[in-house]
Amino acid sequence: MLLDQINQPGDIKKIDHSDLPALSKEIRSFLIEKLSVTGGHLASNLGVVELTMALHIVFDPPKDKLIWDVGHQSYVHKILTGRREGFDSLRKLGGMSGFPKRSESDCDAFDTGHSSTSLSAGLGIVSARDLLGEDYHVVSVIGDGSFTGGMVYEALNNAAGRKSNYIIVLNDNGMSISENVGGLSMYLSDIRTGNGYTGLKRVTEDALRQIPLAGEWAIDRIRQTKTHLKSMILPAGSFFEQLGVMYLGPVDGSNMDQLIRVFQNARKVQGTVIVHVLTQKGKGYDPAERMPSRFHGTGPFDIVTGLPKKKKTKADWTDIFSTVMCKEGGRIPNLCAITAAMAEGTGLRRFRGMYPDRFFDVGIAEQHAVTFCAGLAVGGMLPVMAVYSSFLQRGFDQVIHDVCLQKLHVVFCIDRAGLVGADGETHQGIFDLSYLSLIPNLTVLAPKNKWELADMMKWAFHRHQGPCAIRYPRGTAYDGLEEFRAPVELGKWEVLYDESDICLLAVGSMVETALAVRKRLRQNGYSTSIVNCRFVKPLDEELLVRMAGEHKLLVTMEENVRTGGFGDHVLETLEDRGITVPVIQIALPDDYIEHGSVDVLKQETCIDADSIYGRIAARFIGL
Amino acid sequence: MLLDQINQPGDIKKIDHSDLPALSKEIRSFLIEKLSVTGGHLASNLGVVELTMALHIVFDPPKDKLIWDVGHQSYVHKILTGRREGFDSLRKLGGMSGFPKRSESDCDAFDTGHSSTSLSAGLGIVSARDLLGEDYHVVSVIGDGSFTGGMVYEALNNAAGRKSNYIIVLNDNGMSISENVGGLSMYLSDIRTGNGYTGLKRVTEDALRQIPLAGEWAIDRIRQTKTHLKSMILPAGSFFEQLGVMYLGPVDGSNMDQLIRVFQNARKVQGTVIVHVLTQKGKGYDPAERMPSRFHGTGPFDIVTGLPKKKKTKADWTDIFSTVMCKEGGRIPNLCAITAAMAEGTGLRRFRGMYPDRFFDVGIAEQHAVTFCAGLAVGGMLPVMAVYSSFLQRGFDQVIHDVCLQKLHVVFCIDRAGLVGADGETHQGIFDLSYLSLIPNLTVLAPKNKWELADMMKWAFHRHQGPCAIRYPRGTAYDGLEEFRAPVELGKWEVLYDESDICLLAVGSMVETALAVRKRLRQNGYSTSIVNCRFVKPLDEELLVRMAGEHKLLVTMEENVRTGGFGDHVLETLEDRGITVPVIQIALPDDYIEHGSVDVLKQETCIDADSIYGRIAARFIGL
Repeated sequence: MLLDQINQPGDIKKIDHSDLPALSKEIRSFLIEKLSVTGGHLASNLGVVELTMALHIVFDPPKDKLIWDVGHQSYVHKILTGRREGFDSLRKLGGMSGFPKRSESDCDAFDTGHSSTSLSAGLGIVSARDLLGEDYHVVSVIGDGSFTGGMVYEALNNAAGRKSNYIIVLNDNGMSISENVGGLSMYLSDIRTGNGYTGLKRVTEDALRQIPLAGEWAIDRIRQTKTHLKSMILPAGSFFEQLGVMYLGPVDGSNMDQLIRVFQNARKVQGTVIVHVLTQKGKGYDPAERMPSRFHGTGPFDIVTGLPKKKKTKADWTDIFSTVMCKEGGRIPNLCAITAAMAEGTGLRRFRGMYPDRFFDVGIAEQHAVTFCAGLAVGGMLPVMAVYSSFLQRGFDQVIHDVCLQKLHVVFCIDRAGLVGADGETHQGIFDLSYLSLIPNLTVLAPKNKWELADMMKWAFHRHQGPCAIRYPRGTAYDGLEEFRAPVELGKWEVLYDESDICLLAVGSMVETALAVRKRLRQNGYSTSIVNCRFVKPLDEELLVRMAGEHKLLVTMEENVRTGGFGDHVLETLEDRGITVPVIQIALPDDYIEHGSVDVLKQETCIDADSIYGRIAARFIGL
Repeated sequence: MLLDQINQPGDIKKIDHSDLPALSKEIRSFLIEKLSVTGGHLASNLGVVELTMALHIVFDPPKDKLIWDVGHQSYVHKILTGRREGFDSLRKLGGMSGFPKRSESDCDAFDTGHSSTSLSAGLGIVSARDLLGEDYHVVSVIGDGSFTGGMVYEALNNAAGRKSNYIIVLNDNGMSISENVGGLSMYLSDIRTGNGYTGLKRVTEDALRQIPLAGEWAIDRIRQTKTHLKSMILPAGSFFEQLGVMYLGPVDGSNMDQLIRVFQNARKVQGTVIVHVLTQKGKGYDPAERMPSRFHGTGPFDIVTGLPKKKKTKADWTDIFSTVMCKEGGRIPNLCAITAAMAEGTGLRRFRGMYPDRFFDVGIAEQHAVTFCAGLAVGGMLPVMAVYSSFLQRGFDQVIHDVCLQKLHVVFCIDRAGLVGADGETHQGIFDLSYLSLIPNLTVLAPKNKWELADMMKWAFHRHQGPCAIRYPRGTAYDGLEEFRAPVELGKWEVLYDESDICLLAVGSMVETALAVRKRLRQNGYSTSIVNCRFVKPLDEELLVRMAGEHKLLVTMEENVRTGGFGDHVLETLEDRGITVPVIQIALPDDYIEHGSVDVLKQETCIDADSIYGRIAARFIGL
């Protein structure tokens, strides 16, 4: 095995050039085999095997800095930097992260997870290098999907006119997680297919045909332009060159010789250079080539068939969202759905199929997505933005400034809220209750079970006016407590059990946990109420005051950081009313939470039923 | 006066064409005269007089939708839509806003304030129009400065390939508030000066010269490219056309006939079209033409000389920041300063002059700015990002994901924190204590007076490791309490007065207010302590517990919304310790706060000394 010789950074340089194809084959087999057991990001890594090998042959990490945008495509890099053993514990608690981590290896130059950060980080490191008079190379590797994020353009705008080396590798596989969208994607596609400028020419000429022969001056300019268009073929990359950045490519991403040569040349450029590499997601593994979206992030699978090892038996929260959207799309003619490149993940694929005109995938562009929703609402539509909790952080200012300031009827359906598990620190959705609750005019809800998610969405569509956010976790939708289905009413909570002693005030996913806590408490003789605190904002102050009066201890429970979250709002309200009942706040710690299974992470962070029971029992004794 | 005939939307269409130059002159005189009294955004509005007139001649608001990016250039639009009278109360409480407001006129299609939102909003309205089968035009007017924001690119990427009319007016005055930066700016400048592709060609050829004749394949490609470059001149606007958007221009923004004709043509395009208009900031008023930055946002001024009517006698917070940066820049060789197009506003102009290599203006690009700082820190520099509180909202995810997750030593100096006054809702810095405190690993400070700001900056530079945010208000730096200057220590508060009864726990600007409150309280017989709660995160738990034990009432005071702010952290800590002392939380209401003078706004929101005294006295009687 050639792979056995790859145990630390630089080892790949010792491999005979003629053995490189065999090594790439071994790496692919290794990835397929390991990920068939652990799950992980397969398709994107299979696509960058040669690209990553060539980078490690031409550059010298950790001296040279490699920055992986998003970072889920860094597995080959991990193999080549001595972390092969880590793949058995991939994405498990205490095991290797699925993303680059500076704490894991000095060959990981910058932590990533969210999209489109690598150019800004790269430019920062380049600037530091130059100011400190140091001598190393900085390479950012970024997919064409990530290239739709505005940060990339902000960074490119700053990369122009540099006098020192900075290399951007545009890993162009023609997709983000699903198909790419937008003008830049068409442009890259034209380069890929050798069409040069033709696609664009067509668009412009179509447009020109609409203009009647009036307004001599303007028309003259247009005619000039048209003549230019006809008489030339733009070179590949001129888009980037117009931003003042040099362009090399396109290069065949499976051709090791081409890759090595182009990187060797890119090293020598004194300035910013984009190397455009054409790759294929899933390359070398037939099921992944055919279904790259399925194998973007996969669970354990059967290598021969490519089929998942575990079959899903129960609906996810995402499925419930998806079903309601499709049904309501038929009932509400102005309902529309917006996603930032997450049609699959957020469950909008079916809606897209049924109502293609009312479906908008804007690319990895959360800022634009939020303000686009605001525009749709002003124009008379009812926009629903489906987004992961941690990605909506990107649209924070736009929620404040464009949606809520104008009190627009935009509904945010926030998936992956709370602990998400294997993706770890960058993807945990643990801040949303805090960063949303501080925004004026925004109503914030969380459902206890799958029926309640449906009821809340219908309430938000039909009954509510103004901005509204519904947050729900990753994974299987809770299907217990179906006997409790009080109609959703603005700012009204739902009492599930009304006893004395202790009152559990639980939000969303924590209602299920509250049931288990209550069971333990009752076994130990404590009479325990549970309130489903559906509305995190506004609170049900009336009910809160009653519960505070009727119990000896209140326990707020949320899958969110404590600061600014649900429990804080409860404390505020009690303080306002001068009520001094003791409160325990169950919430996530003030910390980033690493990867691992959600159940284990709940134990680690003490928001599991046992830990909560323990805290309550200990406190109650002292009362 | 022609202006007397302009009393509602559409009135300008009745003005004889030959009278338009006279009308534009009257509008300029009106603006200069009114703003010399009230202050406001002058230079940008003087630049768009003809542009705005032409838009109102060609289009029909409120049927057609005009969206003004940022919006401070909407004064002429306000004049032409029947709001001339409003200029006497411009930016005063209850008076006319300095920005477009849907609540003010149905001719304001979308509220703006922050940069680069107008294309996303415009596309949303266009999409709604088309889905609902309605028939009107949508026009976004955006400056070339705002064009550096990533949202614009995200939106442009989505504007490609549309089949229905959408008009983007690129109001190119060659500046944002100060000079523009970056590749796009150079590109536009090339168009402006008729240089076409030459600037770019030079950059690329410079780069090519660095590559030795090795790597035949890559060099062949480059040679091809080079040949192309030599043999052609790109048409103006090809950058936009490569994104799939039609381009018309450049047009002389002072030539009414040209403007009317190009807009008439743009109306007829079936697709997205960019109309590139060249304007001049401050046009028609000599002092503003010469000093466009000074007249971007101005206070009352003398019309003849252009000089401010009020002379500044005391240092602003910004001045203190500026001075410390310059001094420390000499002491700390790796200190660098980053701004998102706010070198003047944040006080970095002097630093730029002294240490040009270590100064980075990245354009209106807060997302990039934050992650660029993270990269600088990884590379060994000590980056200080100077930013307004409300604009850092744009970099929220990047602070979480790129800076604090990696515990990088980046210092955020946050100006305009708290109420900012005349700019109103979109610019109030009232959320930062909340949205920053929820971020793990971030230390959050606020100084009571000017010396403390200096001490905190030095502490953050020399003593602290890891991410750190210092927030201070707009305007004159408080210079009282100079006798209190305890050394800054992580998580330690400063006791100013240590008595009994009532303890005022005040943050930053509220320490000054606390003095006034204490005076009133003592006059009425209440013994009152004041603690300067320098660290909002982490809290001084030890001192808090002591104060809670020694007083009958705690009062938290912050110029920030209540939710997730300082007071909430105090409540959490007390609850943790089982301490039941009553607490009053003085904070801003859960609402957007309109424009007006800061003093008046403080009264309106009940955070002035009188209101606070009243609340405390009422509560204390009941204890």
